[in-house]
This record gives sequence, structure tokens and C-alpha cells, in this order.
Amino acid sequence: MTLVDGVETETVNAADRGLNYGDGVYRTLRFRSGAPVEWPRHFAKLASDCAALSIPVPAEPLLKDELLRVGNTRRDCVVKVIVTRGISGRGYRYETGLAPTRIVTSAPLPDYPAAHCDSGVHVRRCALRLSDQPALAGVKHLNRLENVIARAEWTDPAVAEGLLRDAAGNVIGGTMTNLFIVRDGVLATPRLDRCGVAGVTRDRVVEAAARHDILCDVTDLSWDDVLGAEELFLVNSLAGVWPVCSIEECVRTPGPVTRAMQKWIDG
Amino acid sequence: MTLVDGVETETVNAADRGLNYGDGVYRTLRFRSGAPVEWPRHFAKLASDCAALSIPVPAEPLLKDELLRVGNTRRDCVVKVIVTRGISGRGYRYETGLAPTRIVTSAPLPDYPAAHCDSGVHVRRCALRLSDQPALAGVKHLNRLENVIARAEWTDPAVAEGLLRDAAGNVIGGTMTNLFIVRDGVLATPRLDRCGVAGVTRDRVVEAAARHDILCDVTDLSWDDVLGAEELFLVNSLAGVWPVCSIEECVRTPGPVTRAMQKWIDG
Repeated sequence: MTLVDGVETETVNAADRGLNYGDGVYRTLRFRSGAPVEWPRHFAKLASDCAALSIPVPAEPLLKDELLRVGNTRRDCVVKVIVTRGISGRGYRYETGLAPTRIVTSAPLPDYPAAHCDSGVHVRRCALRLSDQPALAGVKHLNRLENVIARAEWTDPAVAEGLLRDAAGNVIGGTMTNLFIVRDGVLATPRLDRCGVAGVTRDRVVEAAARHDILCDVTDLSWDDVLGAEELFLVNSLAGVWPVCSIEECVRTPGPVTRAMQKWIDG
Repeated sequence: MTLVDGVETETVNAADRGLNYGDGVYRTLRFRSGAPVEWPRHFAKLASDCAALSIPVPAEPLLKDELLRVGNTRRDCVVKVIVTRGISGRGYRYETGLAPTRIVTSAPLPDYPAAHCDSGVHVRRCALRLSDQPALAGVKHLNRLENVIARAEWTDPAVAEGLLRDAAGNVIGGTMTNLFIVRDGVLATPRLDRCGVAGVTRDRVVEAAARHDILCDVTDLSWDDVLGAEELFLVNSLAGVWPVCSIEECVRTPGPVTRAMQKWIDG
């Protein structure tokens, strides 16, 4: 089911700036037993991403209502919320006062194997390098060609995710996940102030670590840092916490910090 | 008038990857007296941009037919052709065999003042820096947030265009135009192998220069190179050739190479 500005439909206006320029932001979240998981965080991130693009954020009760309308048709599902700058004439310039477009849609949960959480996932290294753009870094906007190109680098279904680096060689994260590593008992995750998307589950991991007195560095991580880590795991709102069991030739067994984080995050 | 896959409609499917990821490319071209200007070049560029994203290019006669259907409703107009990867389920991964979506639409010509061609345009320097992404450089894809953000830096209608630099300080072009300068009688234009869009009119200028024995360098240009140039002009398929008459505090009178190029290009 899809609602566009609250109306059930399968289509959007062809003049929408979301289509023409990728001029918008989005959220992908999980519904569990008919309720959106971590909605306040998702809304806060949506509002912050809208602000980064100077798009007025729709009212929270309005979005929540639309979310429940599409989500309640399937109790356990994925809901995607897109907010674009709206419909405008041709050209990059936009007038002030445009009405943002809301697109809220539900889909079945992805059928990830249970092994992804239990024994972990196989991960590869992508060739594509993420570009540095501080004006957009961290924001989940609709300009996602880099992710599309990176995800097209492999078709082997045994590989669950690919890791992306920036031009300088820093590891930034997966195509659809944020990365954490453990070294010397300390958690670390890439800084995302030049590229990458800062997901809601990444915040939850950082906060869970703080609550349990686990140090967590937000820092530059090299490929060697990643290969040399004691533990590695990937997170997003649908996957939860996936241990990494192999990366290129390196094999890892899910470790204690990863297992603890699964308990705290996936409940 | 808008045709989506040949059918007159104002809407596209909300699951189209053009909307969800900016996963597509486009062309903006001019209709003059009911005929598309430089269509073979535009189609060749569209095909090359589709190839860069591994999107199958629609057949030329099919697109041409749709172009004429929307263009013939207004004899002098702008026609925009979008080709997306098509409609797919959620996720960056795409299946092979997706049918690309064609969106062909017409709009009135922009009402640029005649002075833009005659005495030239005022130009500013944008604060936003373009990011380096060799995998997408030169391609006119639907990920255009950088252009949108840069164009929002000014609202003064007396300023026709803003110039964009990369992180290293090289000038790449305008938000919607390609840049040429003349120094010591030699034409130069920025290389676009790390960022920027390589437009069809840029190619026409390079070829016209060669035909008339004017040297043309495709090279790195600094901000000082631009400010110190004898002549500057901006080009695109709708504007044709615009002399730059002022850039920050520097004032220029349209020079002989600019005037010749207007004759050869705008004819």
C-alpha cells in the first residue's frame, strides 16, 4: 500500500523534484506487531535530514498517521517514508513555499536467512569509492547512485554486504549498513562527516555502548584496521546487528561485544 | 504534455528507481520550429550516459517519436527526456532485465532576457564544492542535489549563473552550464573526468573551435585563471552561448572568440 500526501495511489507527479533531481530524503523502518520500531528516532533523523536540505519537515502526527495506515495492513513489514521538496517547474532553482511531497509505502520484510544474525555474514570490499561531500554527508537523501553502483558489483547471494571506502582509503560502511569494529576491547565506527549515511541503529549502538561502559571511538578506520579487528558487525534498521563472519580471506567468530549488542539492539 | 512509456499521463510509478535512488539519466533540449535541435548528439549522449549506469538505452526511433509527439504541441519549447532504470522492489540491488522507464515532457522556453546573449551575464562564485566521483563524472544523471544546493545560494535575479569548484579549487563549470575561457587567444574549458556534466553544447564548441583553427585546451582551471581570462562564456542547449560580462568585481566585454562562437553555435 502506498500513500502519496495521504491519498492511496501507486503514482507520483512526474514533475516532482524527488524524481527530477533526487531532491528529497527518506527513512526505511521496521514494523513489529503493527507498531513502528524506534519511530521517534526515525522522525528526528528525518527532520534533521530535511533541515540539511532546507525542506520543511511534515508534521509528526501526520506522518505517524500515514505510517500506521500503510503499516497496519501488514503487521510485520518494512515501511519507507520519502519526503521530497515537492513539485516545481523545470530548473534547479526552487521557489520558497513549495509543499513537500510525502510518499509512505509498505513492503514485506526482507527474507534474510537466520544465519545472518546467528553465525554472521560474508562481506566483500567494493571497488567504488564514495565521494567526499560535507554538505550532504550523513544525510539519507535520494541521491543514491553510488550505493546502486556499489551494490551492482556482486551477484553472489552468499555475500550479504559490500564495504565502501572513500578516495583516501578510509572505510566508511556497507552499501546499506553502518559498520562497527572491536579492537583491544574498544568499539569503533567510521566518522561520517565527509560521506556515508548516519543511520538510526548506529546511534542506538553508540548509546548502548555508553550505557554499558564500553568505549566507542568515532574515527577514521583503514582497511587494515577493519581486517585486524577482533570483532566486526554491521547494523541497520531492518537487519538489526549482523556479525561479520568473513571478509575477504579473514574469518571471524561472532565475539562477546557483538553478541551483547544483538541483545541490546535486537531485544 | 508528458508521455510516460509512450502514454500521456502526469504521473510515474512511486516504485520507480528514478524517484527512489535517482537511478537514471536525462537530457534537456530545445525544439525550434517544431524540430529538436541537435537530436542525434543528444541521443548519442543519452546512450553513453545510459551505458555508464548499465541502463539499456531505449530505441532511438521510439524516443524520437515520443519527442515529436510532446514537442509538436508547442513549436518552440524545451523537451526533457528522462530514462530511469525502471520499477523494482526495495533495495539498491537491481535485477537484470528491468524495463527502463521513459519520461518525455515539454515545457515553455525559459524567458531569458535578450541581454544575456547581447551584453552578457553576471556570474557569482558558489560556496558549495563539487565532489569527485570518477564513476559518475560527466554523466547527466538524476543525482543532482549538488546543483540544487548551489543554485539555492543566491536569489538575486540579476545573477544568471554561479560557478562551481571542486574540493581542490579547480573551476568545473556553472550550475547548469559549461564554462569556456580565452587566454592568450587560446580557448580552454575544464576537464570533467572527476566531476561536472559534459554537455552537448560543450562538444559543439570544442568541434567548432577545431574547424576554425582555434586551439582549445581541456584542462584544470584555477579561480585565478578564470578571473584573469580575456573572455569567458557559458554554454548549454537552451542558453546557447552567454558571454560573461561580470564575475565578482571583474568586468569583461564580450570578445571576438565569444562572438564568433555565438555565430557558429546559435547560428
